[in-house]
Amino acid sequence: MKRRDLLTAAGLAAVGGSLTACSQPSSSDASAASGQKDGPARHWKMVTTWPANFPGLGTGAANLAKRITEASGGRLTVTVYAGGELVPPFEVFDAVSRGTAEMGHGASYYWKGKAPAAPFFSAVPFGMNAQEMNGWLYYGGGMELWRELYGQFNLVPFPAGNSGVQMAGWFRREINSLADLQGLKMRIPGLGGEVMARVGVTPVNLPGAEIFTALQSGAIDATEWVGPYNDLAFGLHRITKLCYYPGWHEPGSVLECMVNKEAFEALPEDLQAIVATCCQSINNDMLAEFSARNQQAMKTLVEEHGVEFRPLPDDVLAALKTATNETLAGIAASDPFAAKVLEAYQSFQQAAQAYTRVSEGAYLAARAGA
Amino acid sequence: MKRRDLLTAAGLAAVGGSLTACSQPSSSDASAASGQKDGPARHWKMVTTWPANFPGLGTGAANLAKRITEASGGRLTVTVYAGGELVPPFEVFDAVSRGTAEMGHGASYYWKGKAPAAPFFSAVPFGMNAQEMNGWLYYGGGMELWRELYGQFNLVPFPAGNSGVQMAGWFRREINSLADLQGLKMRIPGLGGEVMARVGVTPVNLPGAEIFTALQSGAIDATEWVGPYNDLAFGLHRITKLCYYPGWHEPGSVLECMVNKEAFEALPEDLQAIVATCCQSINNDMLAEFSARNQQAMKTLVEEHGVEFRPLPDDVLAALKTATNETLAGIAASDPFAAKVLEAYQSFQQAAQAYTRVSEGAYLAARAGA
Repeated sequence: MKRRDLLTAAGLAAVGGSLTACSQPSSSDASAASGQKDGPARHWKMVTTWPANFPGLGTGAANLAKRITEASGGRLTVTVYAGGELVPPFEVFDAVSRGTAEMGHGASYYWKGKAPAAPFFSAVPFGMNAQEMNGWLYYGGGMELWRELYGQFNLVPFPAGNSGVQMAGWFRREINSLADLQGLKMRIPGLGGEVMARVGVTPVNLPGAEIFTALQSGAIDATEWVGPYNDLAFGLHRITKLCYYPGWHEPGSVLECMVNKEAFEALPEDLQAIVATCCQSINNDMLAEFSARNQQAMKTLVEEHGVEFRPLPDDVLAALKTATNETLAGIAASDPFAAKVLEAYQSFQQAAQAYTRVSEGAYLAARAGA
Repeated sequence: MKRRDLLTAAGLAAVGGSLTACSQPSSSDASAASGQKDGPARHWKMVTTWPANFPGLGTGAANLAKRITEASGGRLTVTVYAGGELVPPFEVFDAVSRGTAEMGHGASYYWKGKAPAAPFFSAVPFGMNAQEMNGWLYYGGGMELWRELYGQFNLVPFPAGNSGVQMAGWFRREINSLADLQGLKMRIPGLGGEVMARVGVTPVNLPGAEIFTALQSGAIDATEWVGPYNDLAFGLHRITKLCYYPGWHEPGSVLECMVNKEAFEALPEDLQAIVATCCQSINNDMLAEFSARNQQAMKTLVEEHGVEFRPLPDDVLAALKTATNETLAGIAASDPFAAKVLEAYQSFQQAAQAYTRVSEGAYLAARAGA
C-alpha cells in the first residue's frame, strides 16, 4: 500500500470517527492525577497517515498513544488523528517537522520525495525481513543513520510497528511465467511499481478506494494490497480467487513514529524513556497482531471463499530481483546519503542473509518438509 | 542450554560481579526525584537464572531492569541479581512466588518439574518460531493460558526476550545419515534430549562449564549450546569445525519475566503499564540483539576459524520429528492442563505454519534462490 491510497481511504474513513476515545486516561486511573504533581500535564497530538481504525496500522498507532498515556500516568497524553483529520496523510512529515503536531505515525517510504534514502528504513524489495531489520536498526547502526537523516528535518524517528512479509498481489489470470506479466496493468505504486515496469508490467497508481472497482471492471488486471488480514476486509476475493506470494516488494515493512525534536528534547528523561520503550513495544506488538490476524484471515479466504494462494514462478522472481538491483543502483546514484545508507543496509543484509539461511530459513524448511 | 548448565556457570561467573550498577537511576535524572512525590520509591529485586552479564540473556535481563528504572523516573528501581547471588538459578521461580524477590527473569522450560505445561511457553521442538510465538501469546490466547498456569503459583508472567532459532549443535564427526547418530553421546538436556534418546543418541546432561573439556576429551561426541554469539564465546570451534543446523529443538525460545502477584497488584496502574511495556520492548530488543550478534559471530566462525555450518540430513530431521510427536503426546497424557495448552498451541501452530509457508518461508526461499 502506498501514498495515494490513503488520501482517498482517509476521506472515506473519516465517517468512522477519530481514535481519540482510547487515548484519554480513564478517570479511574489513580496515577493520572498524581502525575500532575510533576508539572503541567503535556497533551500531544499524533497525526497519522492511516484512516481511522485502519486494521493493524491505524490500530497500532492508537495502541501506541494509549500505552504512552497509561505508562506516563497521564503526564503525557497522546491524542490520535486519522489521516485528513488534522492534516492530510502526506503532510504528516511536515506537520511534525514544524511542530503543528508533536508526533506522527506512518512509514518512511512515504517521504521519498523529501529524502531518497527514506524508503531504506521501511521496505526494500528483496531486502531484509522484520527480524533482520530490527537487528540492523537497533544493533547494526541503522538507527544512527535514520536519526542523522530525520535530524535534518527536525525529527526524531523510532521504529513503531511491522507488517511482516506481505503478499505479491491478486491477479485475474494465472501467472505461469514471465511472459504472462507482459503488458499487464497492475496497481502497484512506489518502488515495487518501478521494478515491475522494468519487467514489462504497466504499473498503475490507484487510491485504495478505487481498487475494487478497477479490478472488477478489468481496468486493471492485478493489484497488490497488504496481506490476508487487510485484503479480506477489502473484499478482493469477490473478484478473483488467485492470490500470489511472496511479497518480494515489501518483506517486512517497518512502521515509524516520528517526534518533533524540540518537543522530544523538552521532555524529562523518564518521559523520553517512556516514548522510546512504548515505540519498541508496539514494534513487537503490531507484528504479533499481523501474525495472528493474517493466518486467521488466510484460513477464512481459503476455507470459506475458495481462494488459491500460489507462488510466483521462479523466472518471474529472478527477473524482479535483477530489476530491483537496477532500481536500487539508480537511487544510490541520485543521492550521496542514499548511497551511504544503501551500502550500510546491503552490507548488513549480506551477513544477515547468511545467518538467516541456517537459522530461520533452514528451520522453516525442515519443519515443513520433515 | 538447560537447567544444570547454569548452576555451575553461575558459580564461575560470580566473580564477574552483579549487574546492579546499571539499574541505579543516575543522579542527573531529574524525574527520579520528582517521582518521589507519588509516594515512597519502590525498590525491587530481580533474581535471574543467568550468570552475570551472560551474553544476550543476562544482558537482556539487565536492560529490562534499566528500562523500568528509567521509564518510572526512579519510582520503581530494579536491582538485578545473577543466578546464585541471592538465590540459586533454579530457585528463581519459588523465590518470586513467595516474594523473596519481586521479579525474576528466566525461561519457562526450567519449571517443567513445577508444571508439565510450563515448557510450552518457551520452546517446543518443531514448534513455533519467535514471530509465531508472539502472535500466539499476545493475540492468540497464549498469554491467558500462561497467566492461568502461573497464577496458581502466585506469579504474573510476561514474555521478555527471545533467542530466535538456535543451532542443532557441534559434532566431532560428520552426520550424513540417521545411522551416524546411533550410540553417539551428545550433551543435550531437557525435551531435546528426550527426543534424541528415541532416535538412538545417548543424551548426556552436563553443566555448561564442563562442556568444553568433555567434548575435547571425547567423553562426549557432540553438544548443543545456543547459537554463534554464545558458542563463539564458549570456544567450541577450537575442538571441532562442524556445526549443524537448524535448531529443531529450540526454534525461538521465549524468555520470561515473572512478577510476584501481590507485588504487581500493589503497583499503581502507571507502574503496572511500565512493567508490561518494558517487558514487551525487551522481547523485541533481545531478538534484535541476537539477530545482529549471531550473524557477526557466524562470520567470525567461518572466516577466521574455518567452521563449517552444515544441515542435518533429511532422514535425521524426519526421525526427530516423529520422536518429538511421541514425546509431546507423552507429556499431554501425563497432565490435563498440559494437554489443554498443547492443544491450543498446536491448533495455532497449524494455521501459523500455513501462513508462514506463503509469507516468511516463501520469501526467504525466493530471496535466496532468485
